[in-house]
Amino acid sequence: MKRILVDMDGVLTDVYTRFFELYEKETGLRKTMEELIGLKEGEAFPELFRWVETPGFFRTMPVMSESQRVLKLLNEAYEIIVISMATEFPVSLTDKQLWLNDNFPFISWKQVVFCGDKSLISADMMIDDHFKNLDNFDGETIMFIQPHNMNDTCHHHKTVTLWTDLEKLLLHH
Amino acid sequence: MKRILVDMDGVLTDVYTRFFELYEKETGLRKTMEELIGLKEGEAFPELFRWVETPGFFRTMPVMSESQRVLKLLNEAYEIIVISMATEFPVSLTDKQLWLNDNFPFISWKQVVFCGDKSLISADMMIDDHFKNLDNFDGETIMFIQPHNMNDTCHHHKTVTLWTDLEKLLLHH
Repeated sequence: MKRILVDMDGVLTDVYTRFFELYEKETGLRKTMEELIGLKEGEAFPELFRWVETPGFFRTMPVMSESQRVLKLLNEAYEIIVISMATEFPVSLTDKQLWLNDNFPFISWKQVVFCGDKSLISADMMIDDHFKNLDNFDGETIMFIQPHNMNDTCHHHKTVTLWTDLEKLLLHH
Repeated sequence: MKRILVDMDGVLTDVYTRFFELYEKETGLRKTMEELIGLKEGEAFPELFRWVETPGFFRTMPVMSESQRVLKLLNEAYEIIVISMATEFPVSLTDKQLWLNDNFPFISWKQVVFCGDKSLISADMMIDDHFKNLDNFDGETIMFIQPHNMNDTCHHHKTVTLWTDLEKLLLHH
């Protein structure tokens, strides 16, 4: 059975929706998606470095549209490992596991990895929104499109913009 | 550089010292090490299933004697990955990373893995106190002796009882 590494932030969690909300709450201003294209998350929202250290920030993240339904199907056809580069932010760790338990109850704690270096885990496929993870991965790579990775020209990874794209690509091919 | 997986509980953390303290605090009785030999941790201390769910339980764990000094030396000679089966207990995750940051500041967050299945991580050597982890590992195995693993007869792993044993074995051979 093929092992697939599935990233959390920007793939299972709809981080930008939360970024927009928090930014508006703190400043009264609303950013547009267009002005963020090609900017790293921390360039688009410098507040992020404070937010990620705040208990609860990851606990209530919005779930990426259709990800629950499609990941449940993938979990029956593949060995799914949910993986997050989270050890840099200690307070995020408990919040992230509780969030997974709530929103993806079919993903056992045995299928979760929190680490600081994804290259430690061997697998057949990686679904991620960051080049730094995909570029160093040996197997098949699928980039989940998010504002920060939209303008990059070296797209040698397969790309998807929605979980329904993943459904077509990985289940209905 | 050889990669070594170093377990936390019962290897870096002196869990039994804490178990004895908490048990005495709650019951007024003091158990002896002798009466626990060969018993699983949860058989020796059924209270453990409640303790591991309590925020702060892992935050203030005693550090295993000499582990800080010896792991610092090992960290210069090997690629050290500290790994803990912690995703089963969400509240433990933040406490464990903060504890590592405090007590092993030379171990970067990039060298830490929290997971539910150690076989996901490939390495050359594993230092652990549990047969379930060592028996399924492909590389060299070193069992850290703790009361729960003392009576087992199928010791096909190298065994150590102290961090100074690891120092001799891995640095002064």
